[in-house]
Amino acid sequence: MERTDLMTGIEKDWDKFLSLPISQKLPFFSKENRIYDCLFAQQFDRQSLSHLFSVADTLRKFTKKKEGMDFASSLLSHKRAMLYFVQPSTRTFLSFLNACHILGIKTGEIRDTSTSSELKGETPEDTVRTFSSYVDMIIMRHPAPNFVEKTAWLMNRTNRPVPVINGGSGKDQHPTQALLDVYTLHRSFDGNIDGKTIAMVGDLKRGRTVRSLSYLMKNYKNIKLIFISPKEFAMEKDILDFLNKHNMPFYETDNFEEGISQADAIYMTRIQDEHDKSGESKKVDISAFEFKTKHLKIIKQKAIIMHPLPRRTEIDIPVDEDPRAMYWRQERNGMWARAALIAHIFSADGQILKYK
Amino acid sequence: MERTDLMTGIEKDWDKFLSLPISQKLPFFSKENRIYDCLFAQQFDRQSLSHLFSVADTLRKFTKKKEGMDFASSLLSHKRAMLYFVQPSTRTFLSFLNACHILGIKTGEIRDTSTSSELKGETPEDTVRTFSSYVDMIIMRHPAPNFVEKTAWLMNRTNRPVPVINGGSGKDQHPTQALLDVYTLHRSFDGNIDGKTIAMVGDLKRGRTVRSLSYLMKNYKNIKLIFISPKEFAMEKDILDFLNKHNMPFYETDNFEEGISQADAIYMTRIQDEHDKSGESKKVDISAFEFKTKHLKIIKQKAIIMHPLPRRTEIDIPVDEDPRAMYWRQERNGMWARAALIAHIFSADGQILKYK
Amino acid sequence: MERTDLMTGIEKDWDKFLSLPISQKLPFFSKENRIYDCLFAQQFDRQSLSHLFSVADTLRKFTKKKEGMDFASSLLSHKRAMLYFVQPSTRTFLSFLNACHILGIKTGEIRDTSTSSELKGETPEDTVRTFSSYVDMIIMRHPAPNFVEKTAWLMNRTNRPVPVINGGSGKDQHPTQALLDVYTLHRSFDGNIDGKTIAMVGDLKRGRTVRSLSYLMKNYKNIKLIFISPKEFAMEKDILDFLNKHNMPFYETDNFEEGISQADAIYMTRIQDEHDKSGESKKVDISAFEFKTKHLKIIKQKAIIMHPLPRRTEIDIPVDEDPRAMYWRQERNGMWARAALIAHIFSADGQILKYK
Repeated sequence: MERTDLMTGIEKDWDKFLSLPISQKLPFFSKENRIYDCLFAQQFDRQSLSHLFSVADTLRKFTKKKEGMDFASSLLSHKRAMLYFVQPSTRTFLSFLNACHILGIKTGEIRDTSTSSELKGETPEDTVRTFSSYVDMIIMRHPAPNFVEKTAWLMNRTNRPVPVINGGSGKDQHPTQALLDVYTLHRSFDGNIDGKTIAMVGDLKRGRTVRSLSYLMKNYKNIKLIFISPKEFAMEKDILDFLNKHNMPFYETDNFEEGISQADAIYMTRIQDEHDKSGESKKVDISAFEFKTKHLKIIKQKAIIMHPLPRRTEIDIPVDEDPRAMYWRQERNGMWARAALIAHIFSADGQILKYK
Repeated sequence: MERTDLMTGIEKDWDKFLSLPISQKLPFFSKENRIYDCLFAQQFDRQSLSHLFSVADTLRKFTKKKEGMDFASSLLSHKRAMLYFVQPSTRTFLSFLNACHILGIKTGEIRDTSTSSELKGETPEDTVRTFSSYVDMIIMRHPAPNFVEKTAWLMNRTNRPVPVINGGSGKDQHPTQALLDVYTLHRSFDGNIDGKTIAMVGDLKRGRTVRSLSYLMKNYKNIKLIFISPKEFAMEKDILDFLNKHNMPFYETDNFEEGISQADAIYMTRIQDEHDKSGESKKVDISAFEFKTKHLKIIKQKAIIMHPLPRRTEIDIPVDEDPRAMYWRQERNGMWARAALIAHIFSADGQILKYK
Repeated sequence: MERTDLMTGIEKDWDKFLSLPISQKLPFFSKENRIYDCLFAQQFDRQSLSHLFSVADTLRKFTKKKEGMDFASSLLSHKRAMLYFVQPSTRTFLSFLNACHILGIKTGEIRDTSTSSELKGETPEDTVRTFSSYVDMIIMRHPAPNFVEKTAWLMNRTNRPVPVINGGSGKDQHPTQALLDVYTLHRSFDGNIDGKTIAMVGDLKRGRTVRSLSYLMKNYKNIKLIFISPKEFAMEKDILDFLNKHNMPFYETDNFEEGISQADAIYMTRIQDEHDKSGESKKVDISAFEFKTKHLKIIKQKAIIMHPLPRRTEIDIPVDEDPRAMYWRQERNGMWARAALIAHIFSADGQILKYK
C-alpha cells in the first residue's frame, strides 16, 4: 500500500495516526518500495540492512581515491538538505553533514532555536514546513517526543513533501544509530552476524541504542544476548517480552566479567543521567561495569568492543589501542551507513553498486 | 551616470549621502546598467521586474532535472558569498543560502555577533570590510537603521568593492521580500498583474512588506488597493500620498469580510509587536482581521491568499489546504527570485535565459 | 627522521613530549618532507616560505578567471575539513573557511561548545578524535594552551591521523598569522625582504604576532628591527636574546615618530587587554603610539603600514585610503597564504604551480 492510498483514511488525524502500531505506519513513510522517511529502527529488515551495507561498503572503498570521491559527490549534486538539530549533538550532526557532503548534497543548518522564527511566534510545524520549501531533505534531531515523526507525517500531507530523517527524537528513536551499530557488527564479523553472542552493558533501561539493537537482532539467526547491568538499570520488560516472543535467547546478569568473557561483541554504554528525574543515577554504583585495561585479557581473542560514544569512564583510554576496540571505527561507520541510507532514499544506491 | 563619476562629489560624506532622495542614490549602487548593490525596493521597475521573473521562471523549471541543476550550479561556482545575519531570521537566511547553493556559490555565515571580532573592539564597518576581503558578495540583515546601505556605500569607496544585498535592514527596507511578493502575483496571475485588486490586511502601519508592495504596484496599470486594518494600524500617510500622487485608487476599511471579498489577492500580515514601545499592540482587538476557514467561501474563486510568514493566528491552519492559499509557494518563490537577482548581479542571467 | 620512527620513543608520554624543544618535535609533525601538522611559526624556513609564497601568488592570479577558480576548486574536491573554533575569531575563521572553499574542500564547523558532546561529559580529546573520524583535516583555534599541539600529537598516534592546523592556540602560537605577515612583506617588496627595516608598535610584550614575526625575520638577511612601545609593553627578553644570538640588529624606543620614520614596514598592533590580569592596560597611556593621518607625511614614501586586525584606535580610518596602508590587503593575503599551506599539506601545490 502506498502513501497516497493512506491519505484518505485515519492518517488525517495526527493523534490517531500516532497511536497506530509502527508496522501499520510504515507504508505511509515508504515510496516505491524504498524507505522515504527514516523514522524507526523497525523500518530495517534483514534484506534492507544487507543492501544498505553493500552500498556503504562499496561507497567507502571507491571513495578512497579522488576519482571515486568525485564520482560520489556528483551523484546528488543537484540536491540540498537541511540539518535541523536543536538538541546538542556534535557527533550525529557531523556524521550526517559529512555523509551529505560525500554525496555532493549542499547543506544548510539550524542548530540553535534562538536564531529561528520561533521567536516571532511561529509554530514548530510552520518552521519545519519553511525548511522544506527550500530543500530536498530534512535531517533533524528534536527533543520533543514524536516531533520528527509528526514532521514527516505533515510533509507527506502537503503537495510538496520532502523526505525526513530522524537524527534522534526524544528518548525513543534513533534509527541511524541502530543502523550503524549493526553495520559495525557486519563489518567486524565479515558479514556473519548469525550465531553471535552480544553483551550489552550499562544503562540498559534508558539507553535507546541497546533497545534498538536488541530489536534489530531478530533479523539474524541464533543470536544470544547477555544483558549486563546493575539491577536499577536492567533492560525494560517490553524488550524482554519481544525477545521471548521471537524465541531469542538472552540472560541478565550483574556479573560484568563473567558476562563479557562469553561475548563476541561487547556493547558498552554510558549512564543516561540526562533522563534522571532526581539524580537517581548517582546512587547506583556502576564502577563494576566499566571496561578496564585488565579486562582485555579476559575477553575472547576475536571479540569486539563497541560504544555509541560519547564515553565518560566506561572504557579506559588505553583500551583504544587494542585492535578489538571498535568504537572509533563504529563512529566512522555511521557516516558511511548514513550516506548509504541517503543514497537509497534518493535512488542513487544503484549507481553506487555499479561503479567500476 | 556611473558610480565612479559620483566618487568625486557629495557621496564622500555619508550623512549627506544618506539624506539624498533614493532616486539620486541609485546610480551609485548600479554598474553597467545592472543592479550592483540591492538595497531598496525602489531599484525595481517594471522592466527589471519582468526580466528577473523570466530568469526565475526559467531557472525554476530547468533545475527540476539533474542536468539543469548541475548547469545552474556551474554558473557561479567561482564565487563565494558571506551571509551576515545578526538579526533572527530563519526564513530569509535559508532562502538566500539555498539561492546561493542553486547557483553554485560557496557560502560562509555569521549569525551571532558573539563569535565576532566586535568583542575585541572592532567597529562594525571594519568587521564588514573584513568579510569583503574573503568573498565576492555580502548578503546581510542588520538591526541598525541604514547600516546595510552604509556598508554598500563604504564598499564602493574602496578599491575592492563587492556587491551587497539587503536581507532586511531596520524597520524600513527589505527589497527582496517585495521582489518575491510581486513575483508571486506574477506567477499566480500568469504574468497579468495589471487591473488586479489587492487587499492588504493587518498591521499596515509598521509592516514593511505592505509598504514596499504598495510602492511597487505603481509599476502596473489599473491596480486597486484595499487597506484593511484596525484604525490603530492604518497605512501611513506617506504611502497614501504616494498613491494619490500616482493616481492609484485605494480605499481604507476596517470591514475585513467586505474588503477581502472584492480582492484578487489578499495579503495577510501579522502584528509587528517587536516594534512596540509599550505593549500597545495588545490593546488592539485584531481578532476580526484573521482569515478563518469560513472566509474561504466569501473570497473570489480565483483569489489568492498571501502572507510573508511567519504567521501566528492570522490564517487558520486548515486554510493551507485550499488551492488559493499561496503563502507556502510564495515563500519558495523567494528562493527563486533571489537566485534570479544574484544571477543578474553577477551577469549570469543571460546564460540562464539561453539554457536549452 | 619520520613520525613513525619516533613512535617508539619519548613521544608516547605527552608531558615529556611537550617539554621537548620545538626543533626536536618537528619531525613528528612532518611527513615526506612536507609540513603535515602546522603548529608553530618555527616550522617555516626561508625555503618553505618562498615555496608557499610562489604557490599563493600563482593561485591568487589564475583564480581571477572563472576557469582558474574552477580548476582550483577541483584540486581538493575529494577532501573534507572541520573548522573547530571555540574561541571568538571572525577573521581567522573566515579566512580559513574561504581558503578551503577556493580549493574545493567541503567544510563543517563547530564554533560554540554548547552544541557539543562536552555537555555529555566527553573529554576534549575524544571530541576532537570524533571530528577526525569524519574529515580529512582539522583546523582549530582553542583557548587552552598547547591543546592544538596535543590534538596533533594524539592524532598521529592513532591509526587514522589527519593533519591539524593551528588557527591560534592560547597566548603563544598562531603560525598562519606569521605566514601571512611575511607574505605581505614579500608581496609589498616584490620578493626582496632582505635588508629591510621593520618597526613594530604597540603591545609587544603580549602580542603573539610581533613575537612570531621577529622570529621569522631570521630567515632574511640584514634585517633591522625597531621595537616601539611604552616601557610597560616592551618586547620580552626571550625574543631579544634570540635576536642577539642570531646577530640581528634591533633597538627599542618609546619615540613613535622617530621610530616609524626610519622603517620600511610599520607593524601596528592593538593592546592585548584580554590578557590583562587586573586592568593594567588602562593605566598605560598609549595615545602616543597611534598612527594618525598626520603621520603619513613623516614615513618613507615606499613604506608600508601593516596591522593584524582587528584595530581599535591604533590607526586613523582616513589612513585606509593611503596606498601605503597595507592591512586590508594583508588580511586578504591571509586567505591566499592559508590556501597555499593547505594545498602544500595535501600535495596539491605542484599542480597549482604547473597550471597553464
